[in-house]
Amino acid sequence: MDPRIRKHAEVVVDHSTEVEAGDNVVVSAPPAAEDLTLALCEVVGEREAFPLHVAGRQDATRAAFLRAADADALDAPDHELALAEAADVWIHVRAHDNVADMSAVPSQTMSAFRKSHSPIREEILDTTWVLTQFPAPADAQNAEMSTPEYEQFVWSAIDKDWDAQREFQDQMVEILDPAEEVRIVSGETTDLRLSVDGMTTINDQATNNLPGGEVFTAPVADSVEGEVLFDKPLIHQGHEVEDARLRFEDGEVVEHAASKNEDVLTEVLNTDEGARRLGELGIGMNRDIDRFTYNMLFDEKMGDTVHLAVGRAYEACLPEGESGNESAVHVDMIVDMSEDSYIEVDGEVVQRDGTFRFEDGFEA
Amino acid sequence: MDPRIRKHAEVVVDHSTEVEAGDNVVVSAPPAAEDLTLALCEVVGEREAFPLHVAGRQDATRAAFLRAADADALDAPDHELALAEAADVWIHVRAHDNVADMSAVPSQTMSAFRKSHSPIREEILDTTWVLTQFPAPADAQNAEMSTPEYEQFVWSAIDKDWDAQREFQDQMVEILDPAEEVRIVSGETTDLRLSVDGMTTINDQATNNLPGGEVFTAPVADSVEGEVLFDKPLIHQGHEVEDARLRFEDGEVVEHAASKNEDVLTEVLNTDEGARRLGELGIGMNRDIDRFTYNMLFDEKMGDTVHLAVGRAYEACLPEGESGNESAVHVDMIVDMSEDSYIEVDGEVVQRDGTFRFEDGFEA
Repeated sequence: MDPRIRKHAEVVVDHSTEVEAGDNVVVSAPPAAEDLTLALCEVVGEREAFPLHVAGRQDATRAAFLRAADADALDAPDHELALAEAADVWIHVRAHDNVADMSAVPSQTMSAFRKSHSPIREEILDTTWVLTQFPAPADAQNAEMSTPEYEQFVWSAIDKDWDAQREFQDQMVEILDPAEEVRIVSGETTDLRLSVDGMTTINDQATNNLPGGEVFTAPVADSVEGEVLFDKPLIHQGHEVEDARLRFEDGEVVEHAASKNEDVLTEVLNTDEGARRLGELGIGMNRDIDRFTYNMLFDEKMGDTVHLAVGRAYEACLPEGESGNESAVHVDMIVDMSEDSYIEVDGEVVQRDGTFRFEDGFEA
Repeated sequence: MDPRIRKHAEVVVDHSTEVEAGDNVVVSAPPAAEDLTLALCEVVGEREAFPLHVAGRQDATRAAFLRAADADALDAPDHELALAEAADVWIHVRAHDNVADMSAVPSQTMSAFRKSHSPIREEILDTTWVLTQFPAPADAQNAEMSTPEYEQFVWSAIDKDWDAQREFQDQMVEILDPAEEVRIVSGETTDLRLSVDGMTTINDQATNNLPGGEVFTAPVADSVEGEVLFDKPLIHQGHEVEDARLRFEDGEVVEHAASKNEDVLTEVLNTDEGARRLGELGIGMNRDIDRFTYNMLFDEKMGDTVHLAVGRAYEACLPEGESGNESAVHVDMIVDMSEDSYIEVDGEVVQRDGTFRFEDGFEA
């Protein structure tokens, strides 16, 4: 086995999820991630914890089930719920035989599935969970890279000094955490204002996402005003949505458009009420991710990007006891901030053309 | 997809487990059975039930875990237990990338795993469960057949008229169910007497095993006396045990030997007290299985064989409220009855040289 796979498993088990003896660990991974799954089961075994391997979230088996299922009969099954309730650690490994497998599922069924599956997702979010990527050939193809090149890209972004990264990101947390208003401007197409007053900014140091490398918070749900064009295509359940545009009034999407697969975007926004509001504002800060790969787990961490998610807010960002924006979906979309762009926090520019205030070359 | 795979999935879902709308179905299957897993998830979806795909029992991921685990730290993890408790239907698919994968696990670890895993196995046995085989190349190799030939062998044994088979087998149930004593004699090496007084004989019509095709009961635990040589090699956790011999006194194995991998047999017998007693007497009656393939699921159903299992008895064979022989193991071993052999029930020969009393060509 490639020693980088064993190292990947160690970062997942020892850094991201800190597996301890006796932990009930679920390894949710598709066949395309077989080698990493083997390494994870091995490392979990060495830690005297208990791995249970289940199919991945976007596995072809789930596509086969959903293609055949009656959308009206979907429900949160007791056995998956019981498993999620009893799990201490949940390791999601993303990898594909074919990134378009889920595209065969009617979007209505997909939407019904996401809704019905919410209670299970909530239980998984209550575990110590992590989402990571195994560099399978289909994912390399999706990134428009050869498999060896993509392997190098993925493992470089994962096997890094997470302490140093955390310190770098802390500088942005110190700006955003006490802030009230954020404004994001890019060219003529994006000018969005939102409040983060009272919200907590999280320093993502590769606990829930591996690779990590962003800071993120939750917008106050009804505070979002303005327009945004997402420069990078959004891949949702195997469909590529290009040039997605959203216009917000009082926090709600009142207009939307896309140049390709607009109906997929419409379906996402119609999932439930919370799907028309923002649940996340994130700022990418991982300089080791140096190119777009059409994979949100990586793209949103890039240093000269901002991402916004419609749907569910992360509980960790919310004031104690507040529920924040609720939804069965959480769909991230990216704004490229590398040119003709800036982020303003409480009236001060904190990033211009991708360079942060605390970095060399910043021009206020 | 090969239409025989879709048919296989339909027999599993509609005949063996009779899946109904809303059922919580676990599909336990390794990567080598991917195509059948897809078909099962599809058919389960069509029945408006809920499939959850988990790794197979003898999956390489389990081997990786057990190789790394400390035998003393093994336990029945809560998440697997919760999943088993909440499942209505449990579909085990057997298939291998390499039938010897489990051989890398030290037999002591394997034995500790079987013991610690008992509560989970008990819960699974309380579901509507079935064990079936997908004809993967490694399994074909193990059967010493080409893959297409083995596919034909497996699917012929599975896709058959189970009503007609049930009627054929009923003739043997009528002999064995009211019986008191059974004697099995083969050549100079096997002469075993045991009581089945009060036990129930089960007609296996492909519910728990697919293919099915045997009738079986439980010996009275302390009634077994005599010697038996198992003619066919037993494959246990990737190890081939040849020429296993057991001698019983008062129901307990008091001597054992094997010409190859005797230590594996010893380890099985030492698992616990019940592992030294018989839990099953089975008589193979599936004439569509016309050759040995070194796979107990098929071999034990052959028409001119008898099999005995050390370890756990099946509850369905026991008088109401009696617990019968208990053990963490249930290991089947086969006696070839095709030549110089007979089965006597209460002093009457009911099978000679593989031919039953109710078949043409029987010579009392």
